Amino acid sequence: MLNPGSLTSSQPGFGRAKPLVGSTINDQRITLAHGSGGKAMRELIQNLLVPIFNNPILEALEDQATIPLGELLQHGDRLAFTTDSYVVDPLFFPGGNIGELAVNGTVNDLAVSGAHPLFLSCGLVIEEGFPLDTLTQIVRSMKHAADRAGVSIVTGDTKVVEKGSADKLFINTAGIGVIREGVSIAATKAQPGDAIITNGFIGDHGVAILLARNELALEANVQSDTQPVHDLVFHMLDVCSNIHCLRDATRGGLATVLNEFASASNVSIQIDEPHLPIRESVRGACEILGLDPLYLANEGKIVAVVPSEKARELVDAMREHPIGKDSAIIGRVKESPVGTVMLVTTFGGTRIVDTLVGDQLPRIC
Amino acid sequence: MLNPGSLTSSQPGFGRAKPLVGSTINDQRITLAHGSGGKAMRELIQNLLVPIFNNPILEALEDQATIPLGELLQHGDRLAFTTDSYVVDPLFFPGGNIGELAVNGTVNDLAVSGAHPLFLSCGLVIEEGFPLDTLTQIVRSMKHAADRAGVSIVTGDTKVVEKGSADKLFINTAGIGVIREGVSIAATKAQPGDAIITNGFIGDHGVAILLARNELALEANVQSDTQPVHDLVFHMLDVCSNIHCLRDATRGGLATVLNEFASASNVSIQIDEPHLPIRESVRGACEILGLDPLYLANEGKIVAVVPSEKARELVDAMREHPIGKDSAIIGRVKESPVGTVMLVTTFGGTRIVDTLVGDQLPRIC
Repeated sequence: MLNPGSLTSSQPGFGRAKPLVGSTINDQRITLAHGSGGKAMRELIQNLLVPIFNNPILEALEDQATIPLGELLQHGDRLAFTTDSYVVDPLFFPGGNIGELAVNGTVNDLAVSGAHPLFLSCGLVIEEGFPLDTLTQIVRSMKHAADRAGVSIVTGDTKVVEKGSADKLFINTAGIGVIREGVSIAATKAQPGDAIITNGFIGDHGVAILLARNELALEANVQSDTQPVHDLVFHMLDVCSNIHCLRDATRGGLATVLNEFASASNVSIQIDEPHLPIRESVRGACEILGLDPLYLANEGKIVAVVPSEKARELVDAMREHPIGKDSAIIGRVKESPVGTVMLVTTFGGTRIVDTLVGDQLPRIC
Repeated sequence: MLNPGSLTSSQPGFGRAKPLVGSTINDQRITLAHGSGGKAMRELIQNLLVPIFNNPILEALEDQATIPLGELLQHGDRLAFTTDSYVVDPLFFPGGNIGELAVNGTVNDLAVSGAHPLFLSCGLVIEEGFPLDTLTQIVRSMKHAADRAGVSIVTGDTKVVEKGSADKLFINTAGIGVIREGVSIAATKAQPGDAIITNGFIGDHGVAILLARNELALEANVQSDTQPVHDLVFHMLDVCSNIHCLRDATRGGLATVLNEFASASNVSIQIDEPHLPIRESVRGACEILGLDPLYLANEGKIVAVVPSEKARELVDAMREHPIGKDSAIIGRVKESPVGTVMLVTTFGGTRIVDTLVGDQLPRIC
């Protein structure tokens, strides 16, 4: 069995987080002592992190998680291993917060290899003075996202830096998963004739962050799309075991992923503007701010390159999945010009969609 | 075979790092664009990180490393998985820098479980304006340390935050390794009668950081002891496969590790002041600053709890190892008072060595 759900002990974690009573640190803010390796840090770990993350591997409180993977892995299976640091600003935004982003993002980096996401680590860098209740809320969001994705947070680290030495909170999650023998997805495998598919509206996360920063001069109701995509990927692999390329379109957006595929596979990718799923609110925000939705970050959108003869069946199947109902074929792979992405506009013209040169939106994830 | 050395391609990495010529980012400092997901980030990865880290798994440039672990793991083997963020200040100190610390520290967190350290991730959080040549130097130190420890850095992530939102550079490394069937080390396994062993002088890293901060009113030549301990651990396991407890004494120092053992095993630990290996320079610095060397951080010192009948043979064997020549038996496990650590002083008195309450030295690692 590949799901680490059996690691969850019978008591639900959310109710078990005890207040830091008896703490030698009396105020309700993070102090440098919480990162010192001493009593305060141990209390933070034992009274907050361990009860919320709630699994026996973490509860061993060793310097490393020990996982009986020899029983799960078969000869021919491969391990997927990934890491991401999350520095999103602000920490809370419409549709989510840094905690669920840190879990979903790393789950998704595993998922796009076709892996079963299994275990995550959690490295916190906290600014001195950070409110303990905000930290608790974020850690609970991480647990909630981990449960949704079927992964366990089994090892962690806490560092505290002086006020002004970090902006509130950064979270690193590394993740491991298992890729079953026979699954082989790579950015190098796009072939002329292949179809390009995505699972829904693009640009939501980028605009949600802008909204949260109050940088928009308009009212809009756009939520981040932060969500785990692994279950959708398994659903897709059931229909088409031969997915050629697959990535989630995060920083740099759809345009960046397509350029990576075009470049790694030595092909050209053509996408059709009329077929791109973009919300009116996102389109409107982009027009006002001079942003291109193709470069806006997403946190639950995948881009797949698949054999054309499977594309229609695959999209139909994806539309039956909760996070795939707006799936669409958005383009195709061509032979040339090699390494380029072309947009066929609504008016029938074409333009090159280059990789982002500057920095559209810092600290988007 | 467990060593990922075969992953290293034939070209040595150090000479391959190309300058960022043709970069759209012309100055030689990190800009927000280097974290954007676009061209500048890709150049940073392809022209700096990938050539230096230099292994085919990383070179695939996928969102996750794909590792044929199914071929390495046998039924009964366990995976060790760990993470640490490094926020040491200053970045460079006598005996090392944040880069080698980030590799050695995570290698050691794997090693103290008896694991063969195999693969690391590298998550960089960089402050805008950070000099590119300093980053290059630190990344080369990471590679150097990885080569020394026989591990490969196979996946990574780069985030850039605005000037003032992080202090220069934070590095997270997560690590995975394989624990062979039959090896079982845990903080819960100390038994009355066991001996306590360490592999050399304590407190060097803590004092080296203080020296680097110019916070000492004295001249002293103390180097950080940052070094990988896995090979010493294998050497120890060859002599005594039944090591009960093993940890590296980092943040919080020797005192913290011993308290963790005493508490997890429900025993008392007694250490002998005259037997503690402490350099005169470290002792002097501690006297001047009112610090206790028992709480000073180390970055290459392990504390082992072993059956007493094996202790002498083990120390003799450790002394033949390059990083064990100052190994010593420093104490013993007693039945009571449960959960406490006692120091028998040079003058024959005893005092309780409690867990650190406040914060002795922030950002020590």
